Amino acid sequence: MSILVVGSVAIDDIETPFGTAKDVLGGSAVYIAVAASYFTTPVRLVGVVGGDYPQHAIDFLNDRGVDLTGLEVVKEAKTFRWSGRYHYDLNNRDTLSLNLNVFEKFDPKIPDSYKKTKYICLGNIDPTLQRRVLEQVEKPTLVVGDTMNFWIDTKKEELLKVLPSFDVFILNDSEARLLSNDPNLLRAAKKIRAMGAKTLIIKKGEHGALLFHEDHIFSAPAYPLEDIFDPTGAGDTFASGFTAWLAKTDDLSFENMKRAVIYGSTMASFCVEKVSVDGLRDLSYLKIQDRFREFKTLSRFDE
Amino acid sequence: MSILVVGSVAIDDIETPFGTAKDVLGGSAVYIAVAASYFTTPVRLVGVVGGDYPQHAIDFLNDRGVDLTGLEVVKEAKTFRWSGRYHYDLNNRDTLSLNLNVFEKFDPKIPDSYKKTKYICLGNIDPTLQRRVLEQVEKPTLVVGDTMNFWIDTKKEELLKVLPSFDVFILNDSEARLLSNDPNLLRAAKKIRAMGAKTLIIKKGEHGALLFHEDHIFSAPAYPLEDIFDPTGAGDTFASGFTAWLAKTDDLSFENMKRAVIYGSTMASFCVEKVSVDGLRDLSYLKIQDRFREFKTLSRFDE
Repeated sequence: MSILVVGSVAIDDIETPFGTAKDVLGGSAVYIAVAASYFTTPVRLVGVVGGDYPQHAIDFLNDRGVDLTGLEVVKEAKTFRWSGRYHYDLNNRDTLSLNLNVFEKFDPKIPDSYKKTKYICLGNIDPTLQRRVLEQVEKPTLVVGDTMNFWIDTKKEELLKVLPSFDVFILNDSEARLLSNDPNLLRAAKKIRAMGAKTLIIKKGEHGALLFHEDHIFSAPAYPLEDIFDPTGAGDTFASGFTAWLAKTDDLSFENMKRAVIYGSTMASFCVEKVSVDGLRDLSYLKIQDRFREFKTLSRFDE
Repeated sequence: MSILVVGSVAIDDIETPFGTAKDVLGGSAVYIAVAASYFTTPVRLVGVVGGDYPQHAIDFLNDRGVDLTGLEVVKEAKTFRWSGRYHYDLNNRDTLSLNLNVFEKFDPKIPDSYKKTKYICLGNIDPTLQRRVLEQVEKPTLVVGDTMNFWIDTKKEELLKVLPSFDVFILNDSEARLLSNDPNLLRAAKKIRAMGAKTLIIKKGEHGALLFHEDHIFSAPAYPLEDIFDPTGAGDTFASGFTAWLAKTDDLSFENMKRAVIYGSTMASFCVEKVSVDGLRDLSYLKIQDRFREFKTLSRFDE
């Protein structure tokens, strides 16, 4: 099935305790589109870049089969740039600089050829823009929406307005506590679902993820990684693997959503092993399936 | 199989956001012995109390079938007393007062009738005392040792001395990071196992637990609890459920150790639902098995 990806397209400078990378590919839409391209086709991207967006990035996305009809290029402007530094424990990062540039006035326009896309993955962008996207599409099968603490802090009302349009809402544990004002994740989940999020996923980083669907809960383990090279894009590739597996299989049962959570975790685990999108460059569907099975070995027990 | 439990026997005052409990049963040996009594017999306790230790506590332990031959009563002394307060998020506690009393000079003496016990669960006590216990027993099948940040901070050398005598070492994530000086739990586990802990369990509270055995890893989920009433004893009952399941089945395979971790988590989940040992009063092996199966439903997925 087709998948529509909307989010930021950026150029990043990343510092980690293990090294520095300058002018590398970034942005939620890029991470999501590249990860999704291993599962299903077509992958349709909507985003905006400046005239400085490098040709090798366009070539890479084309090579991955990503449809770039919806990538707006504003020649006279500059691409969104983010620069960040991760600390030794990799759980916290400092934004060193943030230049929204052309992204500041991003107004997602969905090309006609995209409007009937069945699966939609809304990257972590302003909830107002997420709503603008949903106003332009025709009866998608599934809408998956991501967010971050910044939007909970600054655009909570807008987020609460778009939330009921998400079939699946994804956020991490600290964001869930922030949004619900409750330290207990079970109660937080209940409160957030009462806000309109039908199915909810709470990501817990190195501790896995929780899926809440109808009256079921699924607890997914995290892949044990000794060396996390660059956490950038982990959340995006999680949302991508989750949505893309559902798009590939077109099965929205709880059993299949559990698999989707594991595919999300699988893609995130590949992502953080290398810098920028490098962990997603030389994958294959076989490698992805092998790691999926490792998740099974990791958490399976019998009576 | 028989199980030997050594640890503190205390009277606690507990404050939580949900209420206050005064003069309630506490101490790692009591939590461990009571939880273990649902699995196997005999459960043999070694500890020390003062003349003020209440008869109803003795009666309760007797009712649970706990062998108290090894409970030393020093008539003229007072029992170990701990008073603590939990905050709203229940992850942190303040010790309001701590009177070691008779426990200050505790020197565990293993009665002759205990010396051939096959399974040993060493509660969180001074590592010097843990070593004293092991010097007195004859070729146990399995030694499980617990610890806490206090001993890592104040008796690290002693802890490192006793570690190689533990077949299974249990500690929580922050203690693992503290002991290994590594924020990554996988690397921390590797370092701690290099210190001599053959099999290692890292408890992660609301995020479950990791079992490291030979070259396998098992990631266990946590039981989703909306209302944690009193976290006291969660670590003790985890160690107890783990050890007691192995004692009951006398099977030290990785497959069975995974089950043991789930039984540990099961007992901890019952423990924290009520204050003091109240969550362990009216259990049955059937109730325990039902919850074990809930853990399976929670984490099981298929290809």
